[in-house]
Amino acid sequence: MAKDGITTRAKDYSQWYLDIVDKAELSEWSPVRGCMVIKPHGYALWELIQQGLDQRIKDTGHQNAYFPLFIPQSFLLREAEHVEGFAPEVALVTHAGGELLAEPLVVRPTSETIIGVTFAKWVHSWRDLPLLINQWANVVRWELRPRPFLRSVEFLWQEGHTVHVDEADAERETLMILKDVYADFVEKVMALPVLRGRKTESEKFPGALRTYSIEAMMQDGKALQAGTSHNLGQNFARSFDIMYTAPDNQQVYGWTTSWGASTRLIGALIMAHSDDDGLVLPPLLAPIQVVVVPIYKTDSERADVLAAVERLTTGWKGRFRFKVDDRSNLTPGFRFSEWEVKGVPIRVEVGPKDVQKGTVAVARRDQPGKEGKRFIPQEGLNDHLEGLLLEIQQALYDRALRFRDEHTFTATTYDELKALVEQGFVRCYFAGGDEEEARIKEETKATVRVIPFDQPEAEGRCIVTGQSTTRQVVFAKSY
Amino acid sequence: MAKDGITTRAKDYSQWYLDIVDKAELSEWSPVRGCMVIKPHGYALWELIQQGLDQRIKDTGHQNAYFPLFIPQSFLLREAEHVEGFAPEVALVTHAGGELLAEPLVVRPTSETIIGVTFAKWVHSWRDLPLLINQWANVVRWELRPRPFLRSVEFLWQEGHTVHVDEADAERETLMILKDVYADFVEKVMALPVLRGRKTESEKFPGALRTYSIEAMMQDGKALQAGTSHNLGQNFARSFDIMYTAPDNQQVYGWTTSWGASTRLIGALIMAHSDDDGLVLPPLLAPIQVVVVPIYKTDSERADVLAAVERLTTGWKGRFRFKVDDRSNLTPGFRFSEWEVKGVPIRVEVGPKDVQKGTVAVARRDQPGKEGKRFIPQEGLNDHLEGLLLEIQQALYDRALRFRDEHTFTATTYDELKALVEQGFVRCYFAGGDEEEARIKEETKATVRVIPFDQPEAEGRCIVTGQSTTRQVVFAKSY
Repeated sequence: MAKDGITTRAKDYSQWYLDIVDKAELSEWSPVRGCMVIKPHGYALWELIQQGLDQRIKDTGHQNAYFPLFIPQSFLLREAEHVEGFAPEVALVTHAGGELLAEPLVVRPTSETIIGVTFAKWVHSWRDLPLLINQWANVVRWELRPRPFLRSVEFLWQEGHTVHVDEADAERETLMILKDVYADFVEKVMALPVLRGRKTESEKFPGALRTYSIEAMMQDGKALQAGTSHNLGQNFARSFDIMYTAPDNQQVYGWTTSWGASTRLIGALIMAHSDDDGLVLPPLLAPIQVVVVPIYKTDSERADVLAAVERLTTGWKGRFRFKVDDRSNLTPGFRFSEWEVKGVPIRVEVGPKDVQKGTVAVARRDQPGKEGKRFIPQEGLNDHLEGLLLEIQQALYDRALRFRDEHTFTATTYDELKALVEQGFVRCYFAGGDEEEARIKEETKATVRVIPFDQPEAEGRCIVTGQSTTRQVVFAKSY
Repeated sequence: MAKDGITTRAKDYSQWYLDIVDKAELSEWSPVRGCMVIKPHGYALWELIQQGLDQRIKDTGHQNAYFPLFIPQSFLLREAEHVEGFAPEVALVTHAGGELLAEPLVVRPTSETIIGVTFAKWVHSWRDLPLLINQWANVVRWELRPRPFLRSVEFLWQEGHTVHVDEADAERETLMILKDVYADFVEKVMALPVLRGRKTESEKFPGALRTYSIEAMMQDGKALQAGTSHNLGQNFARSFDIMYTAPDNQQVYGWTTSWGASTRLIGALIMAHSDDDGLVLPPLLAPIQVVVVPIYKTDSERADVLAAVERLTTGWKGRFRFKVDDRSNLTPGFRFSEWEVKGVPIRVEVGPKDVQKGTVAVARRDQPGKEGKRFIPQEGLNDHLEGLLLEIQQALYDRALRFRDEHTFTATTYDELKALVEQGFVRCYFAGGDEEEARIKEETKATVRVIPFDQPEAEGRCIVTGQSTTRQVVFAKSY
């Protein structure tokens, strides 16, 4: 047990995660099985994730809209693979307004079908394309083993849905979203390096032509899928009659895409950066970036310290997200600990001696204890803090990247794969299909996370079939 | 029929409203009865409404959180009046994950009950209070006669939920939200004057001690409730065991409030300001505040005009929400009309003559035709536009206020009330109760919208009972 009732990672990584969620007050289970209450600190993280994604989604030409929560059950049946993928986990509304409904309504698990029906009405001519729409919404999937943020029955997400004139434009969109929206946000704002690549047939979205994904490594070496982007081909366009008149007056099916990122990102954030003392947040996503803790004993010290704090924080509004924690009924140590557990990147302590000396103590959350604490002149403090926030942001990214590098391996035999996949990501030549993937999953619990975009020039031997192939994949256990 | 297939207000006000929703591309019905698709232009309005309300909600000390979509049916039964009010219009999930649920789940019509259960866990000591939480969410009420934005089966809203130490603090919160959040936003940003007051017993929220409301007048003289704030007393605290330890160590029930504003505000916005040519938007809520329409015939005119537009709009980013509409396949007249229907406050036209003369044509949406169009020097255009946006914002408010004043009457007899309520708001002395209100509603279709905060000093005679009373109320038909 580390401090404040948090299980250490070394002892039980799963329990550590649950303890962080609890002690940092991010979420708790509601009385409804598998449905979370997202608490204010957790929701503030989600708002910052939303802002960062929404900006990128709008900057790349998409508009937000809103589609119904309910989907007539028959819509789900129209795309064969889609219904097979989602039917087992839907929630059904059968009664409303005191009456039995003629047709049950599915609470949306994803919105391709209801949006498909709508897009069929919106798309007429090639001039209407591309149609670039995004929705922020709640969705419901009846998960059997829910985990906070990672796999909850209800979760929050954005889902993009677009229509294009041809396969090339749909493919360009699918990859652009993966790289310029998702990977860019997760790496730059969440400080989390990701692998980019394509999913195998057995791991793709039900109904998609091709699914792409970004995968991040957690501190136990497992992968977490942080965003997916699907080229749906003409599958949904055919099922929902999304047709347009081409310049040559032919009626043609459109090509659609969909892509989503969810509150699961909060799970990734926690598991990638946090430590045994609690949450660790990258400054760009921290709801509070700097907490100021005034320290004093006597009334006259109090007056001096608070006056200094007042002076120091003038001009911080709009520059830093900050909080002055002057709860005089709690000891400084208790307050330090609370903000540490909640992951505030910088703590500034101001005591009577600091007032005399014209200094403050500045402590970095990412370097706990004495190592990360310095006395800094009050003069020039703002610039120092601004620089330090950038430094911490980069340090978290660098640490995560170093960790991933240290836990990424190459395997040339199946035995090597089996051993190495216990420790992290394993890259290897692989020419197998659904059957081989299923067997490996059965035997190792690992799956192909992605077929990375960067592929070798040279051929190699498939670790399972022994066939010669140029295709490398990354295997890992995953959340 | 006015232009573009919009029915005139004089001919059929209800149809005019539906035509505006349709032609301005704000929303459309989905295949699910009573559930809207909110289209990009409508959703952009909602995003600006959200921003304005969210800022005010946070500035007054509240934090956002998120609670489950589903509520166990039994929770609704715990507060007697509450279940009576909402049970008839709920949607029920009975099956999920392929199985019949042991207890049906209600799709939230409002969240007092599920939040009450959670607050009971969060509140321990008087030090935890006030607890000030807000949620942005979708809710479902099985309305029998849905109308876009005004009464849809699923709608989007914010719902605030708070807990206080005593009745006085709960009442202060309830009134503060009504005045400093809702009325302030609707009047300043939506340019819509509102009456502030209390609801009668028969019109209050199911389970509330007191309900307060702001009421706006639409152009047909009817009232639209634009936001409500409820002092719930200890009713929900008792039903859900929200108790705290007081400084004297006694266990005491908390006092709770709740308050909400929804996508219904978009309905109010449309019906208050728009005209027979389409939507009219106050600049502070307009997704596009200024549209620039370049006009040219020859290629050399095109080059000159687009260069001028490029130069003129430099520096607009971050200052105006604007769009340059250079769709060369559409005539200028067609483009003018589209932005008129969509309510863009200012249109700037730039043609070859403007380039020569160093002018542009600036047309105000709130003054259609020649009246609102001026030629303005390019020099100093930005300041002119900035001033004009403020002027339009104020002009819309003034026009709505003047309209309301002209359609607000005083009645001293029931016959007067009956006649006048056909034309607008009627203020009168009223000492009746549920029974008299029900009879008046039956006979006139009007209800007491509010007991306004500003009450007379002098007594008068109740228009129904003839009793002497100091209580004045405002009757009106309503949406």
